[in-house]
Amino acid sequence: MKATIERATLLKGLSHVQSVVERRNTIPILSNVLIEATAEGGLKLMATDLDLQINETIAAAVDQPGATTVSAHTLFDIARKLPEGSQVSLAAADGKLTIMAGRARFQLGTLPRDDFPVIAEGELPVSFELPAETLKQIIDKTRFAISTEETRYYLNGIFLHVSADPQPVLKAAATDGHRLARVTMPRPEGAEAMPDVIVPRKCIAELRKLLDEVDASVGVSLSSTKIRFDLGHALLTSKLIDGTFPDYSRVIPTGNDKILKIDPRSFEEGVDRVSTIATEKTRAVKMALDRDKIVLSVTSPDNGTAAEEVPGEYTSLPFEIGFNSRYLLDILGQLDGDTIEVHLADAAAPTLIRENDKASALYVLMPMRV
Amino acid sequence: MKATIERATLLKGLSHVQSVVERRNTIPILSNVLIEATAEGGLKLMATDLDLQINETIAAAVDQPGATTVSAHTLFDIARKLPEGSQVSLAAADGKLTIMAGRARFQLGTLPRDDFPVIAEGELPVSFELPAETLKQIIDKTRFAISTEETRYYLNGIFLHVSADPQPVLKAAATDGHRLARVTMPRPEGAEAMPDVIVPRKCIAELRKLLDEVDASVGVSLSSTKIRFDLGHALLTSKLIDGTFPDYSRVIPTGNDKILKIDPRSFEEGVDRVSTIATEKTRAVKMALDRDKIVLSVTSPDNGTAAEEVPGEYTSLPFEIGFNSRYLLDILGQLDGDTIEVHLADAAAPTLIRENDKASALYVLMPMRV
Repeated sequence: MKATIERATLLKGLSHVQSVVERRNTIPILSNVLIEATAEGGLKLMATDLDLQINETIAAAVDQPGATTVSAHTLFDIARKLPEGSQVSLAAADGKLTIMAGRARFQLGTLPRDDFPVIAEGELPVSFELPAETLKQIIDKTRFAISTEETRYYLNGIFLHVSADPQPVLKAAATDGHRLARVTMPRPEGAEAMPDVIVPRKCIAELRKLLDEVDASVGVSLSSTKIRFDLGHALLTSKLIDGTFPDYSRVIPTGNDKILKIDPRSFEEGVDRVSTIATEKTRAVKMALDRDKIVLSVTSPDNGTAAEEVPGEYTSLPFEIGFNSRYLLDILGQLDGDTIEVHLADAAAPTLIRENDKASALYVLMPMRV
Repeated sequence: MKATIERATLLKGLSHVQSVVERRNTIPILSNVLIEATAEGGLKLMATDLDLQINETIAAAVDQPGATTVSAHTLFDIARKLPEGSQVSLAAADGKLTIMAGRARFQLGTLPRDDFPVIAEGELPVSFELPAETLKQIIDKTRFAISTEETRYYLNGIFLHVSADPQPVLKAAATDGHRLARVTMPRPEGAEAMPDVIVPRKCIAELRKLLDEVDASVGVSLSSTKIRFDLGHALLTSKLIDGTFPDYSRVIPTGNDKILKIDPRSFEEGVDRVSTIATEKTRAVKMALDRDKIVLSVTSPDNGTAAEEVPGEYTSLPFEIGFNSRYLLDILGQLDGDTIEVHLADAAAPTLIRENDKASALYVLMPMRV
């Protein structure tokens, strides 16, 4: 294998693949990136952690086609430090990859390309397109609610499913048992027979990074066990979480009759300010509602007390409710517009938060005792 | 106590004092900042860790003079989150400090001002002025060499001493046994009888931060046990390290006859590049010198090899020497100019590095076996 690549092109390609590679690996080849110089010209890069695989194609002048595998993080670190604008030559021979640029020369140990594991995709019968912008929004508005509890592995991702009643829609949901985020959008063409799938957190994180460089549509193909995102320059393939996502629709309250209308920015800033004195342990913020007067407060045995009045529109009976301030801030951070709706029932009941009844995103937050 | 302060003024003052306060304290009052509203108007802030004390004066409208102490980090966090441009009112009564700004109101527990410890300065018989810029350079060019080994406490700071022979100079030195950095400057007026002192690392760090906001001269006053820096808006007082700094002049080589002249930037970039593959454990970079040809190289059993040729001016006998790449980079990072001088003797002898024989800064680096 022998090829020459612009340093910036190599760096960008490697920055995508190296982040799929785990820092610590007990299986040596999983630390490596597969580099293939094709006869047609161009370099194919590939990396995997056995659950997630990325394939990236970059421009290169190929002198001699061939393939090898080399430490992804080391090659990335080298590419970062090579002089800007330099041409990088890669040549594999005798179990070594030689990297040359300017006056610098590196030799790295390689492992045979045949040992490199590939995720067998099998059939991906369902496929549809989503605008990159839509996919970004789905992720941004739900990922914060993904559970990090490993024992509840079926919550460690974003749940995607279609439903035809009353309208054909595609829904994305994430929850950790304390809060739920759901985005609904028109069902894309081709998704009619889509199975319910849970896309793992790491795939979501890598996909989101790649989306920053994509403007057009993204091709989504899936079966009940695998999903693939086609981003043009990059292809991301992931195993799906083998589990059943709970029937979350039951926790979305429909009868909450105490409605608060409030500016999300002053609400967010107020919660952020009073929670300054909340301790890591509790994080509870109390919300006292009384005829257009909303008082946020925190009492901390260690630090003292904090209170802030936030203007809002509220005409139901006065009452008090507590929330985890971090969870509330996560949700408010995703809400735009001048006014949002907070649907409350009582101090122990799940609360619904949304921009309005036409908004694609909806949030449910469990209260805390305060 | 009752006073009103602009949020930006309060925030800036607190940002200085809070960084002196340790995050964890077994003595509660050491977590606090002393706030004193003076009859003349203005607020005095003070914080200490018993070794280092900062006094800061900020503008404020005082309604009622008085003093109290309150958690420095909590008050700083609150000030950070208060709305930009707001007026902050502080009022102490009944063991509480009430902070109000906009619609927000905080109440923090206080401790009596009389319990607040003050570092007794005693007499500071020696005093002189240093331009802020000079003080910045002294710190920047030496602090990286300060030892972090607690058992060698006498190396945990910058050593300042005067000498009259052949010229009256003030010298600043730091070393960790592997490298030494020394800056020499004309002795300032008033420093004639200065005792040898070791200024602790934390004092240096805080002083350096404060210097970013100072252009004029800094007043330095000291005895053999305390030092005080007067930065106008802020006063920093520190205990000195009670120990004897080793006679470092003996390790500065004077007879190294192999001279390399080299561009510090290409040297630095070359070392940075080849050290990419050095492991955390060794960090050794080898330098092979041969008639105007300098080859830097690293061999790592885990990663492979790296080499880069750097142009330089060298006419002595060819030989090889090894250095800790991080130490070498620390030194090169402080050297400007087109060319620096590296004075070498052999692969086991201390190496001297400096810009030229007129430069105020001088560095000594111990080699490593490679």
